[in-house]
Amino acid sequence: MIIDIHGHYTTAPEGLETWRKRQIAALTDPAITIDTADVRISDDEIINTLESNQLLKMRERGIDLTIFSPRASFMAHHIGNAATSAAWASVCNELCYRVTQLYPAHFAGAAMLPQSPGADTRTCLEEMERCIRDYGFVAVNLSPDPSGGHWTAPPLSDRYWYPIYEKMVEYDVPAMIHVSTSCNPAFHTTGAHYLNADTTAFMQCLTSDLFTDFPTLRFIIPHGGGAVPYHWGRFRGLAQAMHIDDIHSKLLKNIFFDTCVYHQPGIDLLTRVIPVENVLFASEMIGAVRGIDPLTGFAFDDTRRYIDSAALTATEKKLIFESNARRVYPRLDSLLSAQGR
Amino acid sequence: MIIDIHGHYTTAPEGLETWRKRQIAALTDPAITIDTADVRISDDEIINTLESNQLLKMRERGIDLTIFSPRASFMAHHIGNAATSAAWASVCNELCYRVTQLYPAHFAGAAMLPQSPGADTRTCLEEMERCIRDYGFVAVNLSPDPSGGHWTAPPLSDRYWYPIYEKMVEYDVPAMIHVSTSCNPAFHTTGAHYLNADTTAFMQCLTSDLFTDFPTLRFIIPHGGGAVPYHWGRFRGLAQAMHIDDIHSKLLKNIFFDTCVYHQPGIDLLTRVIPVENVLFASEMIGAVRGIDPLTGFAFDDTRRYIDSAALTATEKKLIFESNARRVYPRLDSLLSAQGR
Repeated sequence: MIIDIHGHYTTAPEGLETWRKRQIAALTDPAITIDTADVRISDDEIINTLESNQLLKMRERGIDLTIFSPRASFMAHHIGNAATSAAWASVCNELCYRVTQLYPAHFAGAAMLPQSPGADTRTCLEEMERCIRDYGFVAVNLSPDPSGGHWTAPPLSDRYWYPIYEKMVEYDVPAMIHVSTSCNPAFHTTGAHYLNADTTAFMQCLTSDLFTDFPTLRFIIPHGGGAVPYHWGRFRGLAQAMHIDDIHSKLLKNIFFDTCVYHQPGIDLLTRVIPVENVLFASEMIGAVRGIDPLTGFAFDDTRRYIDSAALTATEKKLIFESNARRVYPRLDSLLSAQGR
Repeated sequence: MIIDIHGHYTTAPEGLETWRKRQIAALTDPAITIDTADVRISDDEIINTLESNQLLKMRERGIDLTIFSPRASFMAHHIGNAATSAAWASVCNELCYRVTQLYPAHFAGAAMLPQSPGADTRTCLEEMERCIRDYGFVAVNLSPDPSGGHWTAPPLSDRYWYPIYEKMVEYDVPAMIHVSTSCNPAFHTTGAHYLNADTTAFMQCLTSDLFTDFPTLRFIIPHGGGAVPYHWGRFRGLAQAMHIDDIHSKLLKNIFFDTCVYHQPGIDLLTRVIPVENVLFASEMIGAVRGIDPLTGFAFDDTRRYIDSAALTATEKKLIFESNARRVYPRLDSLLSAQGR
């Protein structure tokens, strides 16, 4: 089977944005009341948005299941405070939970965390538990920069983040390290901020002993690892200068890269330099890049074609398409096994 | 001949750092006086540092000439104010000028600019003119983030930067877009901040009409263009979504990438996706990555070997090694022509 580990509900029904706008308006207008129970989205609306978008393309492309989380660019943790983020995350995660209930064979959930700049990360734990325990989600998305492009949070190796890691370890769920929208005019959200965050997160891990403290913690660095595989020689060299004998044994038990790289040469490089056990199939469809590549006649984000065409054996492709995901996301494996898959 | 367009004086004699420490101390201690004339570095010291480092390796690797600028990570524009940066840039540039006078066949100068967070960019023009007109420098280094990792400056497309561009156009010199040290704990300087800045700068250009306003302006994006070539499909797709029909005609008359990518697969990707006319040989030797790659037995930053081994014709290699540099840096071409090269 083919598992896409990186999908967001970018096509959510309008009721979601309506609720969010009202929530933001309420921040400055005390006359406006807002409640998480006020979201008005019917099952039919959910079905329509998925059948005409994500599910349609999954069927076209032969993708069996997508790990599905709230829209990354809309997380916008910088808006309001921790309570704002708590309500917004709750609404978004519940909507993804409904998706997984409507299509249990096609979608598994990953939680958005109610992060907020400077807030104690323990404020994320209740929502995290609810998503994993009650909703059956298999992963979380963790933003290393809840400020939205101002990078005011400490590095991922800082103890600030440890409560989240302890909960991840307790439930054996991995985190995708994924920022949200940039409100810094220097950084284009999907063309710079996302890729920069990927590279930044990797380097934060390389320069720390995080995985000594949490040997079973697992991070997925999305968007093909940002700049990391392209500069793998640079990172091996920097590691060597830091007296890290082997970057593989230091990081690659804990760090994985997805395949959201939207052209064949990029996927060829990724699969050439990164061990195949550390590469997980993903497309982030429907996401940042939605067009047809005039050079190929196929969608830029139809990443299955690049894996199919890469110089990989059938065994290696199976690792990338399925087995690695089941290993890195054990709760997904349990869900699938329970379905007889 | 082989021209390395990206070298910094990372091995400068101790007198330079001594002066800088005194300058920084003077910022908080009015009893300390500091003058740019106080730098104590002899010609012999310059000769010794180069003969045992950069020149030694240039000879070993067959590099004929390096475009040489002050150490990037020491620019530290965030320290003090515009006057601090003016004095520091003056000292650093003069030292590079002495290098070019001692070794006119081996080094051509590129200027560090006295940038300072929030300062009017016109404060850079006097130093820029001095370096180009009086010192014969052939390029400048421009930091898109003089704050040192806090990214408080407007994008490169903003009119804030136009005085520098007007002067670049007037003298027909290109700029390498190069940040300095990161004082933001989120960003490792050479493992994250440098690469992030490269990607960020490219995207700032893509989302603007900068090169409509300045059709002859030329930027070199160092470190192989950050994450850009690896994600070339993503950038082509984002451009298409912005109704930019052809990213090549929009940007590639003005933007060039260097070859500071420290492994063969990275160089293979770079030369596969970016037109060969836009790739300029560089190593940033002696720089961020100084070790020997155990996989090859050669220095990570011995990038000539990767170009030699890439699937390129002799004509294409000549473009990368020499002709592109002479075209993009016309003042370098004039210097070389005057030397009969």
